[in-house]
Amino acid sequence: MRSEYAGHGVSRGLVLGRARIREPHALDIDRAQVAPAQAEAEIARLHAAIDTARAELLGVRERLQGELTHEIGEFLDLHGMLLDDPELRSGLDELIRSGHYTAEYALRLQRDRLAAVFERMDDHYLRSRVEDLDHVVGRVHAALHASPDDALLGMAGEILVTNLVSPAELAQIQARGVVAVVTSGGSEHSHAAILARSLHLPLVVGAHDTLLRINEGDAMLVDGETGQIIVEPDAADLRAYHKRRKALARERKALERLRHAPSRTRDGVDVRLYANAESVADVTEAHALGADGIGLYRTEFLFLQRAELPDEEEQFRAYRDLVLGMNGRPVTIRTLDIGGDKADASGLAPRGEPNPALGVRGIRLSLNHPVVFGTQLRAILRASGYGPVRLLIPMVTAREEIAAVRALIARHAERLREEGHAFRPRLPVGTMIEVPAAALGFSAFADLLDFASIGTNDLTQYLLAADRDNEALGDLYSPLNPAVLRVLRDVIATGQRRGVEVSVCGEMAGDPRYVPLLLALGLTDFSLHPDGLLEVRQAVRAADLAALRRRAPALLRCRDRSAILRWLSASEPRSE
Amino acid sequence: MRSEYAGHGVSRGLVLGRARIREPHALDIDRAQVAPAQAEAEIARLHAAIDTARAELLGVRERLQGELTHEIGEFLDLHGMLLDDPELRSGLDELIRSGHYTAEYALRLQRDRLAAVFERMDDHYLRSRVEDLDHVVGRVHAALHASPDDALLGMAGEILVTNLVSPAELAQIQARGVVAVVTSGGSEHSHAAILARSLHLPLVVGAHDTLLRINEGDAMLVDGETGQIIVEPDAADLRAYHKRRKALARERKALERLRHAPSRTRDGVDVRLYANAESVADVTEAHALGADGIGLYRTEFLFLQRAELPDEEEQFRAYRDLVLGMNGRPVTIRTLDIGGDKADASGLAPRGEPNPALGVRGIRLSLNHPVVFGTQLRAILRASGYGPVRLLIPMVTAREEIAAVRALIARHAERLREEGHAFRPRLPVGTMIEVPAAALGFSAFADLLDFASIGTNDLTQYLLAADRDNEALGDLYSPLNPAVLRVLRDVIATGQRRGVEVSVCGEMAGDPRYVPLLLALGLTDFSLHPDGLLEVRQAVRAADLAALRRRAPALLRCRDRSAILRWLSASEPRSE
Repeated sequence: MRSEYAGHGVSRGLVLGRARIREPHALDIDRAQVAPAQAEAEIARLHAAIDTARAELLGVRERLQGELTHEIGEFLDLHGMLLDDPELRSGLDELIRSGHYTAEYALRLQRDRLAAVFERMDDHYLRSRVEDLDHVVGRVHAALHASPDDALLGMAGEILVTNLVSPAELAQIQARGVVAVVTSGGSEHSHAAILARSLHLPLVVGAHDTLLRINEGDAMLVDGETGQIIVEPDAADLRAYHKRRKALARERKALERLRHAPSRTRDGVDVRLYANAESVADVTEAHALGADGIGLYRTEFLFLQRAELPDEEEQFRAYRDLVLGMNGRPVTIRTLDIGGDKADASGLAPRGEPNPALGVRGIRLSLNHPVVFGTQLRAILRASGYGPVRLLIPMVTAREEIAAVRALIARHAERLREEGHAFRPRLPVGTMIEVPAAALGFSAFADLLDFASIGTNDLTQYLLAADRDNEALGDLYSPLNPAVLRVLRDVIATGQRRGVEVSVCGEMAGDPRYVPLLLALGLTDFSLHPDGLLEVRQAVRAADLAALRRRAPALLRCRDRSAILRWLSASEPRSE
Repeated sequence: MRSEYAGHGVSRGLVLGRARIREPHALDIDRAQVAPAQAEAEIARLHAAIDTARAELLGVRERLQGELTHEIGEFLDLHGMLLDDPELRSGLDELIRSGHYTAEYALRLQRDRLAAVFERMDDHYLRSRVEDLDHVVGRVHAALHASPDDALLGMAGEILVTNLVSPAELAQIQARGVVAVVTSGGSEHSHAAILARSLHLPLVVGAHDTLLRINEGDAMLVDGETGQIIVEPDAADLRAYHKRRKALARERKALERLRHAPSRTRDGVDVRLYANAESVADVTEAHALGADGIGLYRTEFLFLQRAELPDEEEQFRAYRDLVLGMNGRPVTIRTLDIGGDKADASGLAPRGEPNPALGVRGIRLSLNHPVVFGTQLRAILRASGYGPVRLLIPMVTAREEIAAVRALIARHAERLREEGHAFRPRLPVGTMIEVPAAALGFSAFADLLDFASIGTNDLTQYLLAADRDNEALGDLYSPLNPAVLRVLRDVIATGQRRGVEVSVCGEMAGDPRYVPLLLALGLTDFSLHPDGLLEVRQAVRAADLAALRRRAPALLRCRDRSAILRWLSASEPRSE
C-alpha cells in the first residue's frame, strides 16, 4: 500500500529503487555466559571477529580513490585505532575470562564502560567519540555473526534504509551501486551529508518511522532535494517521477550547452570563473568546463594522508602537473592550511587546542615551521617556471605575516637562482581574506599584495562568532547578515581602488542563488568547485549587472536576514 | 653565594622571603612488589590515601571564599571527579591484586594507562586532562607518604619554588601566608597566572633552573613584575629592595589620594569610570573608590556554583542588594553569559562543542531556554523598582536577537504589572559588542538600544580569529591591531552619532597604558575591575584629551603593531 514519509533532503537526486533495510546493530544484548571451560574458545572467537573487522576496514581503506580519500580515510584510521586499542582488547579478554561472558555480552559491557569513560572525562569530544565507538563495536558484532559488513550495505538498484550511516560506509555504499540512502536519524550538517553530496549519492536524513514501517523489498521513490519518500508508489506517482526526471535531464542538458559559452552577464560584462581544486580530476574537469584558471589549489591534500611530509621534489612535481594541466591559465596555489578542523598524520598540526578554529592554523603554523614552509615555497617557485603560478597565503591576520612571507620568498628565490632553477621572477602573492582583522585591515596591507581571495565560510564563521559545524547554532551561521555583506562590499571596493584583484572562493561563490548578491556587491571574480561551475555560469548569464548594481544600496540598507532574503527573491532573474 | 635568575613575572609584587622547595611528585617509580599475602593490605593503604586526598580536596573547597570561588571550584570539582572515577579505582585494585604491586607502582601504571587512553582517543582535551590527572595522582601519592599536601605548600614568609602550581593550590598557598611563588615551568597566560593576579600573590613562571639550584631556606628576592629572582641577596640588593619598596608605597599612597578625586583629564573633560563586579565585595569596593556606577555585573556567579538554578526570588534579592549597594548610581546587569569557556553545574551550557568560543553561549543560550531566561528578566525588572538598573545582553550577533529580547521584556513587564510589582517602566537595554558582526552592524540595530558595552577581550579574539587562552599563538592575540582600533573607533563614533552611550568593559579599559589610546579613539566611558580603578583614574588625569584627539588620525594610520606601540609611547604623559 502506498505511504509517504518526509525527511531532510541533504544530497540531491530523484531515484526509484528497492528498499534494503539495515536494522541497527542490536547492542543491547542481555547478560549471557559460556561454560568456564569455553572461555578461551570464546576469546578466540572474539579475536577472530576483531581481526575480520580490521581486515574489512583495511579493505575499504585500500579501495578508496579520488578526492575524498583523505576525508574518509581519517575516519577509517580513527576506527582502526579504536579497534587496535589494547585497553579495549585486554578489557574484553578479562571480562570473558573472569565472568565467562559471551563475546557479544562482553562487547556490550566493554562498550558501555568505554562510553561512560568518554562521557565522564571529556566534554568536548564526547558525542563524536561515542558514535565512533559504536560504529566499531557494530562492525565487530557483525563479524561475530559471520554477516560480513559489506552485505548489509545493499547492492545495485537498492535504497538503503537504516538508522545512521557513517562517512566510511558511504563510499562502500556508492561503490556497490546503491542508488540512495534514507536514515531515520542523522543531521543535515553531518560529515555524512557533505560526503554524500560529493559522491552525488542522494541522501535523506531524519526520516523518522521509515525504519519501522518500510519493508525489505518495497519499491521506493526518494527525492534527495525535498526529502520526500514515497513507498509503493502508485501510477500517478510514477508518471510524476518520470516527468520530473525528464525535466531534470533537460535542465542538465541546457547546462551542458554552457560548457563553451562565455561567463557574460545579460548586459555584456565578462565575469571570471576560476575553479577550486584539490586533485588531478578536479583540474581536468575545470579545464573541460572552460574555467578561467585555478582560483584555489589546496595543498593540504599532499600532506594529510601520510606520516612523513612530502619532499620538495614530490611537491614540485604535483604543482608542475597542475600548471601544465591548466595549459597557460593561471593557477593559484595556497600554501599549507592545516590546523583548525584539519589534522594531519605527521603531527605538524597542533592537538588539544580548546578552540581549534581560533588556533594555530594556516600561515600561523607555516611560520612556526620554517623548514617545512621553505620546502613548499621552493617547490611552488620552481613550478612557476612552467606557467602562470600565483601564491596564496591562508589565515592571514596582520601585515607582519605577509611581510614575513615576502621575505622568505625572496630568500628562497635567491637560493634557487644560485642553484640555476627557472622560476617566475615576480611571483604574484595574495592572501586569503577570512580572518575579520584581515578584511577590515585590508587597506593597511594591500600594498604588499597582488591579489586576494575572500574565504566566505571562515570569514562568516568568525564575523558571527558561530562555528559553521555546530548544528546547535541552527540558523545563526549564515552569510546573509548585514555585517557580512558590508565587509564583502568594503573588501571588493578597496581591491578595485587599490588595483588588487579580489575573488571569492567560499561556498557562497559556488551557489547560483547568491550570484545576483555578489554581482551587486561588485564581485567579478568567482572561484568555486567545478561541480557548480555551469550552474553559476548560467546564473551569471541570466543577470543584468547594471540593474543589480543599481539595487546594491538597497541591499546594504537591509538590517536583518529577512530583508536580505526579500532583496534576493526580488533579484531572481526571469528565465533566460 | 648570591645568584640571579630570570623568569616571566606574571603577578606583580616585590617581596623578600625564605625559599621553600617543593620537588615534583616523583611519579616515575620503579616496579616494586609486595608479598602476595599483603596485597589486600596494600589495597587498603591505597584506599586510605585516596580518601585522604579526597578529604583534602573537600577541605579546600569549603575554605574557598569570595569572587574566585567558582573559578577554583571548577578545578576542584574536576579533580574530585577524577579521584572518584570507578575506572581508576577498580583498575588500581586489580593491579595490586593480580600483580602484587606496591600502591605507588600501581598508581604509576594506572596513571600511564589512563594518560595513554587520553592521548590516543582524544586530541582536543588531551593536554589539560593529563595535567589534571597528574595533579590528582600527585595528591594521592603525597597522601601515601603521609605528607599532607598542605605541608608542601609552604608557610608564612616563605617563597614556594616548584615546577608547576595548580589554580586550586594557589588559594591554599595564599591562605598559608606564603609571600610569592616561583615555578620552573608554567606559562604567562595560564589560569594560575590569572588567579595569582586576582589573589595579589606575586608569581614568576618559566624560571628555569631555579628548582635545581635554589636550596631550601635560601633568602630570596622576587619581583613579580620583571620576573627577576635574586637568591642570597647582598647588601646592595637589599638596599635597592628597600628603596624600591618605599617608592612603590609612595606610588600606592599617591593613588589612594585619588579616591575622592574626579576622573577628569588635564584639559578638564570628565570621563566616567564604571566598575565591573561579580560580588558584594566588588560593589563595596566600587562604591568606596567613587566609581560612577556598575558598568558590568556578571550574573554567571549566581549560576555557576550549583546544580539547581537560582529561582526568581533569589536572583531578585541579589540584584536588589546590588542596586541598594550602589546607592542611586546606575547598575548594569548582564544577563546570563555561560557557554564558551564557562560551564555550569546545572547542565544548561552545552558540552562537547568542538569550538566552544564559537558556540551556543550568552544570549544564544538564553533564547534557547525561555523559562530560565524569563525568570532572570523578571528578577532584573523587579530589582529596577529599587534604583537605576540597566539590562545588558551578551553575545549579540544580529538585530533579530535584540528584537526577541525586547519582546520578552515587554511580555514579562506586562505580567509583573498585572501582579502589582514595581519596576522601571522603560528599562534601558544595551548589548555587549563582542561579536564582530555586532560591531560592524551596530548602526543596523542602534535604534533598538539605549547603550552598548564593547567587550574588547572577545571582540579581539574573534576579529583576529585567535583564541585568547591559546598560549601557542604567542603575540598574535593583541588588541594593538589596526583592524581592532578601527572597529573601536567606528563603534564609538556611531554611538555618539546615534545618541547611544558606548563604554568599553574589556581588560583594555582596566589597563592604564591603554587610556591615551582609548581617549584618542573617542571613548569617555570605561568599565573596569575596581582593582585598577585608581590607576586608570590617574592615567585619565594625566591625559590631555584635546592633544590625544589631534593625534587620533596618526593612530588610525598605523599599519602594524610596532607602529601602534610607537604611537603609544609617544603618548605617555610626562609626570603630572
